[in-house]
Amino acid sequence: MSQTPRDPDFEQRVRSSFERQAVMSTIGATLARVAPGEVILALPFRSELTQQHGFLHAGIVTTVMDSACGYAALSLMESGAAVLSVEFKVNLLAPARGSRFYAIGRVVRAGRTLTVVSGEFRVADTDGEVQPEATPDTTGTLIATMTGTMIAMPNRPGLVD
Amino acid sequence: MSQTPRDPDFEQRVRSSFERQAVMSTIGATLARVAPGEVILALPFRSELTQQHGFLHAGIVTTVMDSACGYAALSLMESGAAVLSVEFKVNLLAPARGSRFYAIGRVVRAGRTLTVVSGEFRVADTDGEVQPEATPDTTGTLIATMTGTMIAMPNRPGLVD
Amino acid sequence: MSQTPRDPDFEQRVRSSFERQAVMSTIGATLARVAPGEVILALPFRSELTQQHGFLHAGIVTTVMDSACGYAALSLMESGAAVLSVEFKVNLLAPARGSRFYAIGRVVRAGRTLTVVSGEFRVADTDGEVQPEATPDTTGTLIATMTGTMIAMPNRPGLVD
Amino acid sequence: MSQTPRDPDFEQRVRSSFERQAVMSTIGATLARVAPGEVILALPFRSELTQQHGFLHAGIVTTVMDSACGYAALSLMESGAAVLSVEFKVNLLAPARGSRFYAIGRVVRAGRTLTVVSGEFRVADTDGEVQPEATPDTTGTLIATMTGTMIAMPNRPGLVD
Repeated sequence: MSQTPRDPDFEQRVRSSFERQAVMSTIGATLARVAPGEVILALPFRSELTQQHGFLHAGIVTTVMDSACGYAALSLMESGAAVLSVEFKVNLLAPARGSRFYAIGRVVRAGRTLTVVSGEFRVADTDGEVQPEATPDTTGTLIATMTGTMIAMPNRPGLVD
Repeated sequence: MSQTPRDPDFEQRVRSSFERQAVMSTIGATLARVAPGEVILALPFRSELTQQHGFLHAGIVTTVMDSACGYAALSLMESGAAVLSVEFKVNLLAPARGSRFYAIGRVVRAGRTLTVVSGEFRVADTDGEVQPEATPDTTGTLIATMTGTMIAMPNRPGLVD
Repeated sequence: MSQTPRDPDFEQRVRSSFERQAVMSTIGATLARVAPGEVILALPFRSELTQQHGFLHAGIVTTVMDSACGYAALSLMESGAAVLSVEFKVNLLAPARGSRFYAIGRVVRAGRTLTVVSGEFRVADTDGEVQPEATPDTTGTLIATMTGTMIAMPNRPGLVD
Repeated sequence: MSQTPRDPDFEQRVRSSFERQAVMSTIGATLARVAPGEVILALPFRSELTQQHGFLHAGIVTTVMDSACGYAALSLMESGAAVLSVEFKVNLLAPARGSRFYAIGRVVRAGRTLTVVSGEFRVADTDGEVQPEATPDTTGTLIATMTGTMIAMPNRPGLVD
């Protein structure tokens, strides 16, 4: 699938929009990779994000996948458009236990208005310290998948990405 | 639909499991109602939970709906079972702007193993202070809907609700 | 929710588009009700539409719910727009056994471009003959639910509803 | 992902259950490939399966993906279990136009009770006649995707696959 960005400045645009997502710094998620049609976020485990059995809450897993997918979509959108989630569906495959996770968001089909995306949430199966600049390990245990639809909102006052 | 709890202690069970969901206190969500097959959570707006346009992040909206739906399911499960999310799908209908929100989780069909649930996330259209003990206002603007599947995990060591 | 049709001719428009859905007559589905934001289809059981255990195939259940939901959406769309399904999610609650079924499609939120819909597939719990003009019985056993998104395609050559 | 069948007779089991799905012969779908964790169905275009614009109806697209996914799940289930769809979600990416299509169903995670599956519906981008025994061409235009959950029903009278 050819994933040609319509906005040559796509990486800076994704990075600066991500910086404005306050919830990302609240939960400790960081940008690990920005490419045309693919964005990867990293999330270290934090006990204050858990459900009742001590795993990451499914909603937090979703939060990170949704942002990864939304920014994958934004990376292919025209300059001036803002991105919003229309819908997503998540399947939980395994409890989210581990010390570090990656959410991989990819564009399945980029339309002018709607973009179909798919996401994965994986454990980073690495020992010891992970350097922030390390290449994301996206081969670890699959925790959850997402399929969703993102919409490009053009020229709405106050809605810019 | 008859929603008879199989565990007479269902309310205490839901409340004590909810207390163990660390993410709920992290984001500021509280239990507003526990009834057989229906659980309502309240969430005040917090700017540290927002996406890039200043609305609540869709993943946070999902987090609260998922817990409301999961506990609605748990309220009808047999004693000893733990509840886990199998899958959910969320449609976002309007930006999550407002000062206080409710997530309503309801059981659509309670099976022995699987429970189908539906959720809503609404703005509490109230002026001024909302008392914690107030009856939840579940008529406000609809922000998002959820349909999902919860599973009862019986007798797994370390998995109790 | 106010469901005011933007096209006063909505009923005729839904009926004539339905007539062009060849698959509806192939499977034997008929229009049972057309109202602004709500469309109900009837489907008698046919053994040639079954899966391996003799129930209606989940895809056929989906086919009828998708058309009911799509036409509920179309009933509120502007004149000239065509309706297409963007996505839907189906939960199957009980095997589709019975002699007659109804699919109820309703609009949850009608936007200019996207319409969020919900659907139900129910057994018609009636004895004996059902008259085609009878009021649909939408209180029977719930077989399946749908939530989905429909899109209004304006002014595309060859795409008219 | 290791996809080891628990039932050495899996292929015959899938083939004979498929033969009992009356709706498959009604719409003209055939088995193109049965492998552990992957099943592909072929569907030639038929005008009696279309929606109002002359494309295959989204519900028919779903019907074929659901069977492909369900049989992919069954191919990894224990002997004696029957397979039923719990839920699925479909994204429609492009109108289903073409003369021949493939539905590819794959297992994402096979549990003892629940199996998570993913499906694709693609145009067979081939000129001229396709031999029934030809290797399925699963590189054509992507029409739709599915993610779903299948359940293994063990030892239910009358429910065997």
